Amino acid sequence: MEMVLAGHGAAPGGGHREARESREVLEHARKQAAEFLGVEDPERIVFTSGGTESVQSAIRGWGEGAGKGTLYVSEMEHPVVEAAVRRLEKAGFRMMRIPVDGEGRLQWAKVKPAEGLGLACVHLAHHDLGTVQDLKQAAVFAKSVKAQLFVDASFGAGWVSLPEGLEGIDLLAMSGHRLGGPKGSGLLFIRSGFPWRGQVQGGRQENDQRAGTENLPAIAGLAAALAEWGRSGEQFRKIAREAQQELLEGIRKKVSKAKLHGPEPGLERNPSHLGMSFAGLEAEALALVLDRVGVSAKGGSGCVTREMKIPPAMKAIGAKPEEARSLILFTLGVMTSTPDLSVSANLISEAVKRLASSLPRDLS
Amino acid sequence: MEMVLAGHGAAPGGGHREARESREVLEHARKQAAEFLGVEDPERIVFTSGGTESVQSAIRGWGEGAGKGTLYVSEMEHPVVEAAVRRLEKAGFRMMRIPVDGEGRLQWAKVKPAEGLGLACVHLAHHDLGTVQDLKQAAVFAKSVKAQLFVDASFGAGWVSLPEGLEGIDLLAMSGHRLGGPKGSGLLFIRSGFPWRGQVQGGRQENDQRAGTENLPAIAGLAAALAEWGRSGEQFRKIAREAQQELLEGIRKKVSKAKLHGPEPGLERNPSHLGMSFAGLEAEALALVLDRVGVSAKGGSGCVTREMKIPPAMKAIGAKPEEARSLILFTLGVMTSTPDLSVSANLISEAVKRLASSLPRDLS
Repeated sequence: MEMVLAGHGAAPGGGHREARESREVLEHARKQAAEFLGVEDPERIVFTSGGTESVQSAIRGWGEGAGKGTLYVSEMEHPVVEAAVRRLEKAGFRMMRIPVDGEGRLQWAKVKPAEGLGLACVHLAHHDLGTVQDLKQAAVFAKSVKAQLFVDASFGAGWVSLPEGLEGIDLLAMSGHRLGGPKGSGLLFIRSGFPWRGQVQGGRQENDQRAGTENLPAIAGLAAALAEWGRSGEQFRKIAREAQQELLEGIRKKVSKAKLHGPEPGLERNPSHLGMSFAGLEAEALALVLDRVGVSAKGGSGCVTREMKIPPAMKAIGAKPEEARSLILFTLGVMTSTPDLSVSANLISEAVKRLASSLPRDLS
Repeated sequence: MEMVLAGHGAAPGGGHREARESREVLEHARKQAAEFLGVEDPERIVFTSGGTESVQSAIRGWGEGAGKGTLYVSEMEHPVVEAAVRRLEKAGFRMMRIPVDGEGRLQWAKVKPAEGLGLACVHLAHHDLGTVQDLKQAAVFAKSVKAQLFVDASFGAGWVSLPEGLEGIDLLAMSGHRLGGPKGSGLLFIRSGFPWRGQVQGGRQENDQRAGTENLPAIAGLAAALAEWGRSGEQFRKIAREAQQELLEGIRKKVSKAKLHGPEPGLERNPSHLGMSFAGLEAEALALVLDRVGVSAKGGSGCVTREMKIPPAMKAIGAKPEEARSLILFTLGVMTSTPDLSVSANLISEAVKRLASSLPRDLS
């Protein structure tokens, strides 16, 4: 990124030497992204300003292409997905909700199929629960109702394997910064063969699919991160899995009321993510005490909107209200080492005790 | 930017220490932006992924807030503006075209006012002609028809003064990289007092007006550039004005068929921009020869869409077809020194001769 920031000032669209050099950086990045996703044609990849734009463009772009149809979507999708599908619902699209089980797995067998055009929406890994979805089942469902399949991989990409060649997936949105790329980077994969309309209009960049001067430093940074995942992904996942196990066991040993939501560590869980509740405590308050003892964690849902009082996913999986109100998210990275986490578990236990002792006994 | 890239990894939305540090960077940047624009309340500024997003959000956000109404817009606006207003026109809005004179000045007095809600669209400086618009006249017009005033400052910001306190302006879009900020940065100013709806939805970032994890490195880079303009803007403009004059005189002296479009250098011209035609030559071909002799310039309009054969601005100002087809854009920056430009004029003359001599005599 620093090389690009310092040396590639020209927009890739021009005809002169500097523009051609920028174009080389851009197209090299696109090839690296295609390699990471395992798709043959880099031209099917559009770089965006991040996961939010990618998701919005995917869903609204499908909607504009289709004109009408049915959206299949769970009640615990990320607010970006929810906002985009509600916008289409307002414009006359039909919405069919996908039920979920107690650990957040989408229950495709229970969805009522509809006639006509459709878009089945699924995430790769859930942003609060860490649940990894079965994309093969999702693809089978989409095929059976002749719908396109959209995958929101904003959470989970890198940490969780994608189907080979993105088989069965028509649209895939990704965020850069959640796998070590820079903020302000993201991408959208759009398979050919169905109508889709670009949502950022006004110039011919990105094969006419996303207008605006390309953010070359961010694109180069995202591509470098994706290339690093290609080389070391297996190791990153192993480190995170071990750290996750260590943290979970440590918390369980020391805090009796701690409860994991979503699947146990394994293939069905994002290895970089733990969502745990501490019934009787308020998430925001606990997050503050955690911060004071030296643990950076998120209280409540990872992504909230004004109307949300409790995380929709906690409601969807049938968690008790006191669990839903006390959800804490711990995010692990490739830099989080196992010894650190044994210390973290102690600090978390201390924070829980400190907060509980400050409350009137009947609440603690 | 490098400091933020290396040291501020947390998203500004969280409650822990790292997030608070990121939030400080973000809000400091917002204050710097407010200072540059001369507005009192930093909260009226939303950071975006660039000029394209800012323009789209401004116009489409106004449209969603208004529901119906009239768009006042010239036929030579940037394709991003044109795309956004056409989208609203399709949705039932009325479009009134603003005529322009031979140097690209918008003729507000000749616009037929309409009843009901309205949005008057104007640019600060034209992307092909370099014409600086009279924003006071635009504001008077907008007030007279009770419309909001939108200013696309993607071209011209920094290089051209803005009205004090953005008086009379309701929406202003800016791009970061055109005044030395990083690509992927931009902002949108939204005055309070009329309905406007955010176009990137899904999270509560940017006061609920633009969802998505904030691109902190780009925002910090943009703010640093704006602060630099606050300190040295007068000097930057002086350097560019001198360079522009030098280049223009040099070209005029050596290339008899060269013709400047838009106003002569002065207060009505963006000092960083020269759009000249070389009748009888094709712009793309001349740009290629220029590149070979060592001058990086743009052949044809700065921003084209598939449907454009000749730059719409050249048509709007009544340029001859052979002028419209041979438009070359020269962009000057704070690093372009006057001695360089005397060399450039020689090289441009050489390129014109080389290309002309390669053509059959009746075309050259």
